[in-house]
Amino acid sequence: MIETTIGIDIGGTNSVIGIVDLRGKVYKTATVPTTKFTDAEKFVAELDLAIQSLLNANKGKFKLLGIGIGAPNANYYRGTIENPPNLPWKGITPLKKLLLNYYNIPITLTNDANAAAVGEMVFGGAQKMKDFIVLTLGTGLGSGIVINGKLLYGYSGFAGELGHMNMFPDGRLCGCGQKGCLETYVSATGICRTVIELTEQGFAPGVLSKYKPEELNSRLIAEAAEDGDPLALEAFEKTGEVLARAIVNTVVFSSPEAIFLFGGLARAGKFLLNPTQKWIEKKTQVFFKDTFQVLFSSLEEKNAAVLGSSALAWNELKKS
Amino acid sequence: MIETTIGIDIGGTNSVIGIVDLRGKVYKTATVPTTKFTDAEKFVAELDLAIQSLLNANKGKFKLLGIGIGAPNANYYRGTIENPPNLPWKGITPLKKLLLNYYNIPITLTNDANAAAVGEMVFGGAQKMKDFIVLTLGTGLGSGIVINGKLLYGYSGFAGELGHMNMFPDGRLCGCGQKGCLETYVSATGICRTVIELTEQGFAPGVLSKYKPEELNSRLIAEAAEDGDPLALEAFEKTGEVLARAIVNTVVFSSPEAIFLFGGLARAGKFLLNPTQKWIEKKTQVFFKDTFQVLFSSLEEKNAAVLGSSALAWNELKKS
Repeated sequence: MIETTIGIDIGGTNSVIGIVDLRGKVYKTATVPTTKFTDAEKFVAELDLAIQSLLNANKGKFKLLGIGIGAPNANYYRGTIENPPNLPWKGITPLKKLLLNYYNIPITLTNDANAAAVGEMVFGGAQKMKDFIVLTLGTGLGSGIVINGKLLYGYSGFAGELGHMNMFPDGRLCGCGQKGCLETYVSATGICRTVIELTEQGFAPGVLSKYKPEELNSRLIAEAAEDGDPLALEAFEKTGEVLARAIVNTVVFSSPEAIFLFGGLARAGKFLLNPTQKWIEKKTQVFFKDTFQVLFSSLEEKNAAVLGSSALAWNELKKS
Repeated sequence: MIETTIGIDIGGTNSVIGIVDLRGKVYKTATVPTTKFTDAEKFVAELDLAIQSLLNANKGKFKLLGIGIGAPNANYYRGTIENPPNLPWKGITPLKKLLLNYYNIPITLTNDANAAAVGEMVFGGAQKMKDFIVLTLGTGLGSGIVINGKLLYGYSGFAGELGHMNMFPDGRLCGCGQKGCLETYVSATGICRTVIELTEQGFAPGVLSKYKPEELNSRLIAEAAEDGDPLALEAFEKTGEVLARAIVNTVVFSSPEAIFLFGGLARAGKFLLNPTQKWIEKKTQVFFKDTFQVLFSSLEEKNAAVLGSSALAWNELKKS
């Protein structure tokens, strides 16, 4: 039998389940439509069915050692999902407890960006690092901070919300109610706002002018940049400048060995990285020069979320 | 015999030596004029003489277990002081090694803000805390960050330079060469710059107008605020706003239980704290509300630096 853990990535639309071995090989995956289940207990029953069906199709092949779950608004200490704006369950859902009704093995729950960081540490580019940060650049900006080889949870359990680092005293309005948060500039959504803002400021609209604001996305902007569109390139330049300031702020705080970029906006590759590096060169204090790297996540994007969740389970097993 | 450690606070003008017991009682102190010794070896010889003279005056009373040193630009890992702008020794001074020629007991060296944080943890208001931050508001802004009960050094050994957190994309010029660093706004020097800036912007000059810019200091501004001077009060308002944004940025990063304020500017008390609290109320994300406190250091200021250095030695002894 192959020793495995199960990684579960709970998303607003779908949740993905995967069976993963210690080296990060993903054997089988299944999908459960999260939106279909307004009742969390029924959702967990469906998760169990999907897991059983994966195991039954390979009877006797897998030995299950633990389950790791990445979910928005998850609390590691309490094993709960708390007031998630993008999931169908209101209030506090004791997900770990519900799943323990089905599985008598260690179950660990954390937020999705933390799971991405553990994934990077166990299976990705941070395998030899003790101090690093993962930034997930999707609809918002999530972050997982590893210090001395451990995820940082802080006093409240909610440490590592770098998407809400204040970058401008009176900047863009954020979903959190504050103004000037990092994620309103540096995320798949943030760069769209930058394109719209630049257009409003009179920057000559190029190929992107054929899209309505609500049709824009970071992929289209990256494609326009690929074609040399000046507006798209300027949007990446502005994004890189804010991202560089944020990265330097993480460096003066915890001095990580590397900052990993991951998620939708990170797919833009050099269009994001080049301006970011240029501004980091300009903005880094002399005493921190060359003490850190900015890298892309080395996890295969297709399986990254499941790998991160499964890594969480492996990491927890290592502790005990 | 009373078990003690020696705390040494190395400052640009004077260095202070103190004999301290496990409960933080400071028995004896002595002062060595740092500026007199351009040769670090001679400085260390003088430190030794001063320590011997303290011990001889109380023969047989003290058992010495360790030495802790707080110094600007100190590297904990290497036991060195590296390129300090405000000390007479250029380049890299192997201070720990030099002192080990005289004392065969554990010697620990860290920067002064880190020593203040350990002082708070061992003898001050953070005795029951595992996650907290100390901000020292003097000529610059120093910081010591404690995570899970341990000082944060990071990959480079230089973590915790919050004075250089970027607060404005194109703000005031800092001594580090960058623009918009926190310490150019929030420090004894920073608030003087704010007073000068407000005056230049046409804010009615009050009692502070009798001082030349180079005569201003944070004590005079606090006294003017005490007298109800609108310019001084506005300067504290502006300082509190930037400090609040910086504190919220530390909260979204590491979620500390408390942020302690210490040093010259902190002496302004409520004039600094009230606007800071007001802006924290406004600027804190809902999910971090009431998860942290802003407190003044509870160490007696006269002995704080020596206590911090001595605490470093006690803390190191506890580890072994």
